Amino acid sequence: MDGVIADVYAQFYDWDEREFGRRRSPDEVNGKREFEAFPHTRQYVFQDRFFRDCPLVDGCQPVVQQLNDEYELFIVSAAMEFPQSLGEKREWLAEHFPFLDWQQFVFCGSKQIIRADIMIDDHFKNLDHFSGQKILFTQPHNMFQDENGCTRVRSWKEIADLLLDN
Amino acid sequence: MDGVIADVYAQFYDWDEREFGRRRSPDEVNGKREFEAFPHTRQYVFQDRFFRDCPLVDGCQPVVQQLNDEYELFIVSAAMEFPQSLGEKREWLAEHFPFLDWQQFVFCGSKQIIRADIMIDDHFKNLDHFSGQKILFTQPHNMFQDENGCTRVRSWKEIADLLLDN
Repeated sequence: MDGVIADVYAQFYDWDEREFGRRRSPDEVNGKREFEAFPHTRQYVFQDRFFRDCPLVDGCQPVVQQLNDEYELFIVSAAMEFPQSLGEKREWLAEHFPFLDWQQFVFCGSKQIIRADIMIDDHFKNLDHFSGQKILFTQPHNMFQDENGCTRVRSWKEIADLLLDN
Repeated sequence: MDGVIADVYAQFYDWDEREFGRRRSPDEVNGKREFEAFPHTRQYVFQDRFFRDCPLVDGCQPVVQQLNDEYELFIVSAAMEFPQSLGEKREWLAEHFPFLDWQQFVFCGSKQIIRADIMIDDHFKNLDHFSGQKILFTQPHNMFQDENGCTRVRSWKEIADLLLDN
């Protein structure tokens, strides 16, 4: 969810700029972990509305809709660390993906327990334990890392090319 | 979670009695589905505090603690249908199982996506798709049904006998 369909980086940039009065440049952010690039990340993610107001990652909606037609799709979010996010994420999904059903949502702590054929994620900690096809979604924190057995995609257009019939 | 560690039937009996002014007898409840036994079940489960105030299923705490020492344990709840329950269930788990970590909690819609070796559940709809060992926890709604490949347990004592050393 975060970093794949929910653009948490847009929030990090905005919340950080609001706090420090200056917008960071991508050069200051790319290649660093979230909390290294934006020093108060760990406060933002525990605050109300941080997740609820997240914009969508560019181009995800139509591709998710098509994936949902061709695959058995689940949205899995490691949301459990942030208790206030649980209701917000449920609302966010209902707002932005009305064609998905609550039966397709999973909020977990560790993604180790997830069984599926394909996982799209931006964090190696989630992909490492996964036994199926691993698709790494590029985000600033992973952009200079080795793919380590994952297929890297840089956009939802690339996901469509990889997974959808035309 | 519900019907295995969280005693939702205690809530059904109490909420139903408060509403109708008479406590139903087990004979009226056993062998029926929840909403057949307690006609307003589907209203109760969408109300605040229904899940938060659930008592524990008898004897579960010490056995869960021992299972947590001997196994890699996850608490998986099909909570997604009830948005207001997500935060309540997270709080309930933290209160009653302080020795568990948020990384061990999963709130989902369908349990089809869960990968594990053993599942303890009171509903066949959750166990049917599971590929590991299936343990059916007896509750009024399933008590007269065939086990259908599951191992039936009637108490947390029986779970301890089945799964714990000693």
